[in-house]
Amino acid sequence: MANISHYLQINTALTRTLLVNFIRDEVQRVGLQQAVVGLSGGIDSALTCLLASEALGPENVLAVCLPYCTSSPQSREHARLIIEQTGVRSETFDITAMVAPLLDTIPPQEVKRIGNIMARARMIVLFDRSAALPGLVIGTANKSEVLLGYTTLYGDAAAALHPLGDLYKTQVRQLACAMGVPAVIADKAPSADLWPGQTDEAELGFTYEEVDRLLSLLVDQHYLPEECVACGFERRFVETVLERVRQNQFKRILPLIAKLSPRTVGYDFRYLRDWGT
Amino acid sequence: MANISHYLQINTALTRTLLVNFIRDEVQRVGLQQAVVGLSGGIDSALTCLLASEALGPENVLAVCLPYCTSSPQSREHARLIIEQTGVRSETFDITAMVAPLLDTIPPQEVKRIGNIMARARMIVLFDRSAALPGLVIGTANKSEVLLGYTTLYGDAAAALHPLGDLYKTQVRQLACAMGVPAVIADKAPSADLWPGQTDEAELGFTYEEVDRLLSLLVDQHYLPEECVACGFERRFVETVLERVRQNQFKRILPLIAKLSPRTVGYDFRYLRDWGT
Repeated sequence: MANISHYLQINTALTRTLLVNFIRDEVQRVGLQQAVVGLSGGIDSALTCLLASEALGPENVLAVCLPYCTSSPQSREHARLIIEQTGVRSETFDITAMVAPLLDTIPPQEVKRIGNIMARARMIVLFDRSAALPGLVIGTANKSEVLLGYTTLYGDAAAALHPLGDLYKTQVRQLACAMGVPAVIADKAPSADLWPGQTDEAELGFTYEEVDRLLSLLVDQHYLPEECVACGFERRFVETVLERVRQNQFKRILPLIAKLSPRTVGYDFRYLRDWGT
Repeated sequence: MANISHYLQINTALTRTLLVNFIRDEVQRVGLQQAVVGLSGGIDSALTCLLASEALGPENVLAVCLPYCTSSPQSREHARLIIEQTGVRSETFDITAMVAPLLDTIPPQEVKRIGNIMARARMIVLFDRSAALPGLVIGTANKSEVLLGYTTLYGDAAAALHPLGDLYKTQVRQLACAMGVPAVIADKAPSADLWPGQTDEAELGFTYEEVDRLLSLLVDQHYLPEECVACGFERRFVETVLERVRQNQFKRILPLIAKLSPRTVGYDFRYLRDWGT
């Protein structure tokens, strides 16, 4: 698998410029100046916050920390580092009381349901604060998560813009490193921080480095599964990943409308976001 | 404006068959049998519940009532009528405690923000219950609401399927009447039930009958604004509605991803919902 991972190498200077311009253009295009970013303490939201701050000025970015009572104190500390480094405005809203009434109705071992409830509660706060500014919610989803469906639909997947949505996790790391995200954030194991010791890679069953190499061949280079196997990937790994990508397609589409009329939203009534401006 | 509203006449028997099949096909296509519908007591959710019950059998439909402390007792009573009429399973979850911690941070006159928080809290409960079944969340959005943006993004606009999404409100009324939605529900003034006496039409500033006639010309019949004026619509009304449709386009698209790679989700990586099955 020698000559595969060059597909994942990015020009960090160019990518930075493109993403800063993307954020600025898309926010200003709808007549706004401000943005809200949910800061978890992880690398994706740290990088998103740096990009938004560079695009709009730190005074125009509101970073919202949304801890739950079991969130790691280290996560809050890392979020604090980014707020200090960028100089963005910040707010902390503890979601514990908000999710408690619903969590009380769910068996505690249902960690997926619990995680989704938390991610969606955070979405509610972020969108509310964006309405108050007013500004856009800048999401933090990356391409690895989006393809693997390792996101909560209408939770962390919900945003006006996803600047990192076309960067694999390993590419997010390159850009984060180039833009000065502290190593203590960039180098820690990615985690949804739902319980102590949780990591993305343990839950997924593979590392982002492995899966990003495979996804970039399957998705971006149009390799067939057999060709990936011929490149040295285990057949079972290729099948597992492909199945996961397919099964999560429902998270990457709009709600399905039953087509009855000459023009239907999502089918033949389709416009760009800024059609109205 | 004599010969305009015939565009809005639907064949209710055919529409009923199409929508029942749509729900059944889309639920079964992803290997499921069950569905969740949020019942507000209004006509849209009543009709959606009837369609889902006919498509899947009442034993496979969970109707969830999601009152807030100020919700009208009449709404709950109307929801109860539909549960009895269809025989679907039901659950009531009061969202008051869930939204209180966030509402406490918002000035009470910010009714739009408050309404969005409630709609999104309801989404969280519906999606959680759908995961528990497992089943799909069947949404209740209609074409008038979707085009006018009279919905909460990631709130009531969030669902797996919107069977009514291509029916104008006046067409929803025809189908509801044909399918036996009680007149007490079908004939009452549409309302988001956020405060006593609230009605959609007072908030929007026009009736659904007026706006549906205009929208069906603009959207489905491809009339130009001037042609609508020539048909007898007031110029200001046409402009107001068109502006509203345009300004709310952001609610009808996926989050924008910054394109950086050969294949990007939402641009050139696009598949149907059931690609995986």
